[in-house]
Amino acid sequence: MPKHCDIPVKQFIPRAGMTVNELITEMGNAGAYNGGSLFGAVELYEKMLSDPDMTKFFGLSGAMVPAGMGGVVSTLMEKGHIDVLTSTGANLTHDIIEAIGCHHYKGTAECDDIELRQDDINRIYDVFLPNEAYIELEDFIQDVYSSLPEKPITISALLRTIGEQLDTGILATAAKNDIPVYCPAFQDSVLGLQYWMYSQFHKKTILDAIGDMHNLMNTAFNVKKAGAVFVGGGVPKNFTLQTMLMTENAFTYVIQLTGDRPDLGGLSGATLDEAKSWGKIGEGGVGITVYGDATITLPVLATATLERLEGRK
Amino acid sequence: MPKHCDIPVKQFIPRAGMTVNELITEMGNAGAYNGGSLFGAVELYEKMLSDPDMTKFFGLSGAMVPAGMGGVVSTLMEKGHIDVLTSTGANLTHDIIEAIGCHHYKGTAECDDIELRQDDINRIYDVFLPNEAYIELEDFIQDVYSSLPEKPITISALLRTIGEQLDTGILATAAKNDIPVYCPAFQDSVLGLQYWMYSQFHKKTILDAIGDMHNLMNTAFNVKKAGAVFVGGGVPKNFTLQTMLMTENAFTYVIQLTGDRPDLGGLSGATLDEAKSWGKIGEGGVGITVYGDATITLPVLATATLERLEGRK
Amino acid sequence: MPKHCDIPVKQFIPRAGMTVNELITEMGNAGAYNGGSLFGAVELYEKMLSDPDMTKFFGLSGAMVPAGMGGVVSTLMEKGHIDVLTSTGANLTHDIIEAIGCHHYKGTAECDDIELRQDDINRIYDVFLPNEAYIELEDFIQDVYSSLPEKPITISALLRTIGEQLDTGILATAAKNDIPVYCPAFQDSVLGLQYWMYSQFHKKTILDAIGDMHNLMNTAFNVKKAGAVFVGGGVPKNFTLQTMLMTENAFTYVIQLTGDRPDLGGLSGATLDEAKSWGKIGEGGVGITVYGDATITLPVLATATLERLEGRK
Amino acid sequence: MPKHCDIPVKQFIPRAGMTVNELITEMGNAGAYNGGSLFGAVELYEKMLSDPDMTKFFGLSGAMVPAGMGGVVSTLMEKGHIDVLTSTGANLTHDIIEAIGCHHYKGTAECDDIELRQDDINRIYDVFLPNEAYIELEDFIQDVYSSLPEKPITISALLRTIGEQLDTGILATAAKNDIPVYCPAFQDSVLGLQYWMYSQFHKKTILDAIGDMHNLMNTAFNVKKAGAVFVGGGVPKNFTLQTMLMTENAFTYVIQLTGDRPDLGGLSGATLDEAKSWGKIGEGGVGITVYGDATITLPVLATATLERLEGRK
Repeated sequence: MPKHCDIPVKQFIPRAGMTVNELITEMGNAGAYNGGSLFGAVELYEKMLSDPDMTKFFGLSGAMVPAGMGGVVSTLMEKGHIDVLTSTGANLTHDIIEAIGCHHYKGTAECDDIELRQDDINRIYDVFLPNEAYIELEDFIQDVYSSLPEKPITISALLRTIGEQLDTGILATAAKNDIPVYCPAFQDSVLGLQYWMYSQFHKKTILDAIGDMHNLMNTAFNVKKAGAVFVGGGVPKNFTLQTMLMTENAFTYVIQLTGDRPDLGGLSGATLDEAKSWGKIGEGGVGITVYGDATITLPVLATATLERLEGRK
Repeated sequence: MPKHCDIPVKQFIPRAGMTVNELITEMGNAGAYNGGSLFGAVELYEKMLSDPDMTKFFGLSGAMVPAGMGGVVSTLMEKGHIDVLTSTGANLTHDIIEAIGCHHYKGTAECDDIELRQDDINRIYDVFLPNEAYIELEDFIQDVYSSLPEKPITISALLRTIGEQLDTGILATAAKNDIPVYCPAFQDSVLGLQYWMYSQFHKKTILDAIGDMHNLMNTAFNVKKAGAVFVGGGVPKNFTLQTMLMTENAFTYVIQLTGDRPDLGGLSGATLDEAKSWGKIGEGGVGITVYGDATITLPVLATATLERLEGRK
Repeated sequence: MPKHCDIPVKQFIPRAGMTVNELITEMGNAGAYNGGSLFGAVELYEKMLSDPDMTKFFGLSGAMVPAGMGGVVSTLMEKGHIDVLTSTGANLTHDIIEAIGCHHYKGTAECDDIELRQDDINRIYDVFLPNEAYIELEDFIQDVYSSLPEKPITISALLRTIGEQLDTGILATAAKNDIPVYCPAFQDSVLGLQYWMYSQFHKKTILDAIGDMHNLMNTAFNVKKAGAVFVGGGVPKNFTLQTMLMTENAFTYVIQLTGDRPDLGGLSGATLDEAKSWGKIGEGGVGITVYGDATITLPVLATATLERLEGRK
Repeated sequence: MPKHCDIPVKQFIPRAGMTVNELITEMGNAGAYNGGSLFGAVELYEKMLSDPDMTKFFGLSGAMVPAGMGGVVSTLMEKGHIDVLTSTGANLTHDIIEAIGCHHYKGTAECDDIELRQDDINRIYDVFLPNEAYIELEDFIQDVYSSLPEKPITISALLRTIGEQLDTGILATAAKNDIPVYCPAFQDSVLGLQYWMYSQFHKKTILDAIGDMHNLMNTAFNVKKAGAVFVGGGVPKNFTLQTMLMTENAFTYVIQLTGDRPDLGGLSGATLDEAKSWGKIGEGGVGITVYGDATITLPVLATATLERLEGRK
């Protein structure tokens, strides 16, 4: 056997009726490029979710809820596979829109945006969202805001209050299962704009920007082991990883599904090796990056891992 | 229902034991971004493969055989799903390497390439290929070359001759099933270098660069309908599409799985809409591009489509 | 002249000694792909900066200060070309690090991150940052934090206070020139972590997450015309654009320099056409996206535009 | 000075009237990400072009001539900076189109391709090319083809014959300066389609696919030192690099300007380190990759390097 060469690449043979985990296993037997990394991510996610000592962080960036990926997140929460969620404000806005009964629609990226504007449609690549959803959102959220106590609250407390009013989706499931949801850039969303509108007339409740860091840092200080999945990069990735800078702890297992690339220097595309120089991932930690669109890689990752944990059913 | 808005995005719910086509169907119910496109590609591929009037072209670029994707291509050929294959020379070189019993190995992209060089290992991203494979390839291919007749031959005739000496893989399966394999840039591969070496001492056989165009153009002139799948872009994509420039025909269904992007102007990342301006795809034709790594998208596309055609088994 | 065809592409002829604007002009005469877009961006930026009625927003994302791009931002501020800056917390953290006399260093992406960790070096792609910079940052910033009044303050007020203590860099120049700096995800940075640390022992000052929206929204309501440049996407892009959702106004000119891509659905790579469906950019507005690394496109954009405004000197 | 940290990143200060080399020098003082790599590429190109022992290869891929980048290539040839050119067939087709007086036009990527088709316009991203250019090309090229001798010829000999009929552009300049032009995938272009058409009626001249390898391999065996610039990847990159596999020689300096990425495994995006494992680049060789659109990076690279060689003028 030549040096460095132990495991041969096996050619992938497609078979009708393969389950998703069978697909992933064959992809792992081929084992190269991002197909090989996706297999590695499933292996790591199975380990992460099977370890009773593991605190499981999840970071959600990119317009994932409009693309139907919110269902993956809420399912993982229901099953106990997420302990701490950090999200962009946009994903939570769209989650509420769906939870109050409005919809995103399948559209197209080949269109006239001026015409869409005139027809009161907002576009997110090939997803269409009617303006009326924002009108219903306003009714709902202004009611929630008006119910808030006259004292400073944290963003996660506000999100918890919202989630308690809802039946389905990410915020509802988080509230039901007592999972903290962090959203450091809350102002950077329609939820934030609505909060500004509310506060124009009712200036009593201050949203404490730093307030959530106490609980989050407590979690970071007290983990036995920490694992994380990042869908996209952005604020959720950095906010989650940076917690460890202040502790002796570090992440053990990290999976990132990203469409970015490392050579531009931004954190969203940064390799997980880079995170080791900072001590965010520990010396013996394992990080796996799958480059590609999370509307493909996230469903495959979640479905294959659930099959490993729960059997074929 | 607001204008332009008919079909709501459904949140994707992962379930243990889903088959690959069930996964794709749920991805299609979400239906956005590249996950939505991959569903669309499966829909189109099912139609393409079910149509008895369809001539099915397949273009293979990128280092796909070293990554285990050659098995998908040979399986599709065995099942009658490819009528004309165009490939880079590199994929065929690596196909022969596997067919004569050598292997590619799972390696890593985080390594010292000078050390690999000293250990006689060639790297293809995270795949390792020992030099000794090239020594065995030389023995095999020089034998084949020395058996050639003393007259000009086409590249596909040479590839057919090679395939007839092999039992497994793309060239073997093509030979067995009488599927033409085109490789316009044959010289741009180790097969070409070996041919040069051979011709240093045995100058009798000329490889006719244009010779294959006669058969290929005949095919293009005579198709009832034409469909194509492109894995990557490069020469195979253009060589396949350009045939229609000389005919009244055009492609009806085209699927491309690419990691490139349109804004750089190159054909590999060009949209299939662009191909309509040239008349390569017909006015009523449908083209679907899935951006991402084909080591993920190709296995999913093939497996889901086979499940649709053959049942779950 | 064939339909749709008015202006021929001119072949680019490189000449020794061209100024950057001469380069851009020749690029514009070629005029295709991202080279053509970069020329278009210079044209638009010249218009934007020459219009006395224009309020000029600037969004700064990606690890730009560690890569030396902070100097472009502070120079533009000095010259009156930025009225409102929105930044990630990381860029401001690194700006302070440079302003207090610490440095980022040229490193390499081909390295052993465990070894870097042991040598107290943090890596940002091919830039190295010694841990000791964070120790000096802590000294400086804890002093600033301890000087804060015992009442809720906004993030921009805090950043103004910091800038007033500094002589060079983005925050210093903003303070000197009375330019508001917004940083909605302040907690998502070492500045935020330090604030948390400070607040562990000194709980008096609340950072009001929504507080800055009042001034920013006032600006948005009162612009005669609005223009924006976005380096990267992320929170700064959305936070800037979303302000217009609440007003009758819209952006007229927008330039984005991004390494992201539209087909993944995320806002960072979204086209500026998409922003028109939302009304963030007006019907007659112009948006130009240059895809590529801003460490190349930003210096070219700024230098060529200054040459147009100030002459060759 | 902390370990690994010698050269601080300097913030880039834009100044009106900077020459392109002054811009590059300041970019080098910043020195990170692709801006830093572009500076490194200029440094390397200056060395490459200044070394009298250097044989200078150039590989041209991607739709560069339609985007006006052919002028850079012909200027470099005129100045003696290219000894061996390898190109895709498409770039040479478009070079001839320009040389016979037809034009590419500035268009837009936001358009209706069916409408373009009906108006006889072919689109290359945002470049438009009227069909009539192909009619004129046919007249010209069929004349050339009919002048060929009745014996097998190589592709480069054919390209030389074409270049001798032209006054401007890549092929004309190559012919005038006796620079060989290789085009291994000649059939994969309209030139190839025209050759097929010609050979339908005049079957006398065989195009020898392997013929050019003799001269090219001779060059590879006899270089004192070898340097290469690759615009894009594709066949030109591999065909150039693979020559060294058969020799004891290797490339010393290699620059690649690419929009591809390494993690997909394809050669176009492969790092130049990977080329060292194969021995294509020597152990002490230097390879620099600049990721981005060559319509930006190629003009900057050429202009800055010429300024270094020729002065500011």
